[in-house]
Amino acid sequence: MGNLQIAILVGSLRKESINKQLANAIVKMAPTSVDFKFVDIGNLPLYNQDDDEHQAESVRKLKADIHQCDAVLFITPEYNRSIPGVLKNALDHGSRPYGQNAWAKKPTAIIGISPSPVGTAIAQQHLRGVLAVLDMPTLCQPEMFLQFKDGFFDGAGNINEGSRKFIKSWIDRFINWASINKGI
Amino acid sequence: MGNLQIAILVGSLRKESINKQLANAIVKMAPTSVDFKFVDIGNLPLYNQDDDEHQAESVRKLKADIHQCDAVLFITPEYNRSIPGVLKNALDHGSRPYGQNAWAKKPTAIIGISPSPVGTAIAQQHLRGVLAVLDMPTLCQPEMFLQFKDGFFDGAGNINEGSRKFIKSWIDRFINWASINKGI
Amino acid sequence: MGNLQIAILVGSLRKESINKQLANAIVKMAPTSVDFKFVDIGNLPLYNQDDDEHQAESVRKLKADIHQCDAVLFITPEYNRSIPGVLKNALDHGSRPYGQNAWAKKPTAIIGISPSPVGTAIAQQHLRGVLAVLDMPTLCQPEMFLQFKDGFFDGAGNINEGSRKFIKSWIDRFINWASINKGI
Amino acid sequence: MGNLQIAILVGSLRKESINKQLANAIVKMAPTSVDFKFVDIGNLPLYNQDDDEHQAESVRKLKADIHQCDAVLFITPEYNRSIPGVLKNALDHGSRPYGQNAWAKKPTAIIGISPSPVGTAIAQQHLRGVLAVLDMPTLCQPEMFLQFKDGFFDGAGNINEGSRKFIKSWIDRFINWASINKGI
Repeated sequence: MGNLQIAILVGSLRKESINKQLANAIVKMAPTSVDFKFVDIGNLPLYNQDDDEHQAESVRKLKADIHQCDAVLFITPEYNRSIPGVLKNALDHGSRPYGQNAWAKKPTAIIGISPSPVGTAIAQQHLRGVLAVLDMPTLCQPEMFLQFKDGFFDGAGNINEGSRKFIKSWIDRFINWASINKGI
Repeated sequence: MGNLQIAILVGSLRKESINKQLANAIVKMAPTSVDFKFVDIGNLPLYNQDDDEHQAESVRKLKADIHQCDAVLFITPEYNRSIPGVLKNALDHGSRPYGQNAWAKKPTAIIGISPSPVGTAIAQQHLRGVLAVLDMPTLCQPEMFLQFKDGFFDGAGNINEGSRKFIKSWIDRFINWASINKGI
Repeated sequence: MGNLQIAILVGSLRKESINKQLANAIVKMAPTSVDFKFVDIGNLPLYNQDDDEHQAESVRKLKADIHQCDAVLFITPEYNRSIPGVLKNALDHGSRPYGQNAWAKKPTAIIGISPSPVGTAIAQQHLRGVLAVLDMPTLCQPEMFLQFKDGFFDGAGNINEGSRKFIKSWIDRFINWASINKGI
Repeated sequence: MGNLQIAILVGSLRKESINKQLANAIVKMAPTSVDFKFVDIGNLPLYNQDDDEHQAESVRKLKADIHQCDAVLFITPEYNRSIPGVLKNALDHGSRPYGQNAWAKKPTAIIGISPSPVGTAIAQQHLRGVLAVLDMPTLCQPEMFLQFKDGFFDGAGNINEGSRKFIKSWIDRFINWASINKGI
């Protein structure tokens, strides 16, 4: 039995995005029994239903990446009290055309980091509803609304000791969740 | 290995509630490998944190019922674009005192019936977010926004032939979901 | 032209509730051109549609209080990622029977305080959707997710100097909002 | 005093979009005291914070269009239980860079049409929360979850007689709302 294949989607396209940094740190922390694949959402066109029958190469690539994974990890900021349009656009592409939803039956989890104390709470709440209709079993607890402060990442991009253990146990819980629920 | 124990919470206290009728019809349709228990939420006090250390008898009964079940089924109308206050009050009681959340690790599903075409969609969306923080893995698909019309129930309270098969397959999917996710 | 009449609903029944303390502090800070009335929601029965034609005395009192006010101020904690069941129950009562929604055309605003950094953000998000269907024009900005820390209230129950100015300007914005939108 | 200037954003890029058809029909029905401007969201790049200091020409055009209007009308389908990513992307662009939110103080209303009975209810619920943080006073009632059926539009693209009066009265209510709340 091979490794668990986890696709990572990051909701921010910014080069120095703290959510991208979080993604990189998570990849380094995870056990060797899982493989991660970063899925690019920054080169997708804006979704237009007229293109359903001839999806762009970047869209077909996205869908192929999702099909090949066992589970999906969303690492995203909150923009204007919801998920970034960029991320929603990727979700819309992957769900189409009707009846060919690439996300279906992929277990998933959500994590986000933000400088604001409100964090990514409302974005994650909206995203949960979207993931339900996409048929993606979503890890419940603990909810991960991380607050970014100086020193959260060390110079090598690793998560500081204080937060590390909590996030590590969450990763393990997600891997267990994904193993149990993949493909059902 | 014994039967799967499923607690049912109905969001409406109305005597002739169509959601209560739906609950009764579902109980009759389910396979013999599951046992259902109706949990009363109509005799609970309004939640007040001052009572956390000496919860009312009805609250302790609710929590004991939840503890004894393997899974929970929510059958609820939408009131004012969210779940009924009555149901939220029961959820609040069961989650307290802090650290003694009776709902944790109980897999769950949501179904609702409504005369309106908008159905119970927004109530279910809000409820999903609440169930996530309560740590209740929630069945994703299909979402069950049933529309009530004359003839939905026959004279004996059974669901009409047309809707029956779809709802039966949903019950089976929920039972499978609950069996896989109970206690994890 | 008389004073603006503002009804206050507090989402927590706890005696020492920090949201109740916030309500009291706001009443003391407001200009003399407004009158506040605290509306009791702790003595309401659980809503049951069967009672629509003979509402309890406490329900009729609630509805009369709302009818007499020009605007409504909600001061509420978040329970389990939504508004407290207690508050939703009061909203449900006030909206019924069908066609006799007491909340309609009452402009409103939401504020909440919480020890958690996530604050009352998701509760307020859900509440906004409920208030929209109840036809209550809701102040947009700034959103008030207050974080409770030692010293937030002084010994006399007043808000500390640091937070005071920001909250005072919010109250003024709400009063302006309510004056413009009342009854339209 | 000049006409009220209303910007229209349509959430679907599809050429034959029924929401686009609805937009065109509304423009034809509105009184001569308002001017509509269709705002193009289909040529925007995906939002990337790195571009905040040198926004694309299409983004600057969007923001200029919004600045020049008094109010905004959103006409949108629901994609995967939320607003289309395309529309959220436009909202994200218009809100940035930080402190230069073009949407602020523009009163707004939401309408959507869908073949499904669930309609655009959940998308509109999410959108309301986004509009609140963008500081856009949003019309409450009636909520407009239109269901598309054959004959909804006649051969000339007008709304059928049966639905026409209801939609006309809603437009009038929105115009009144926008007139009262613009710029406050």
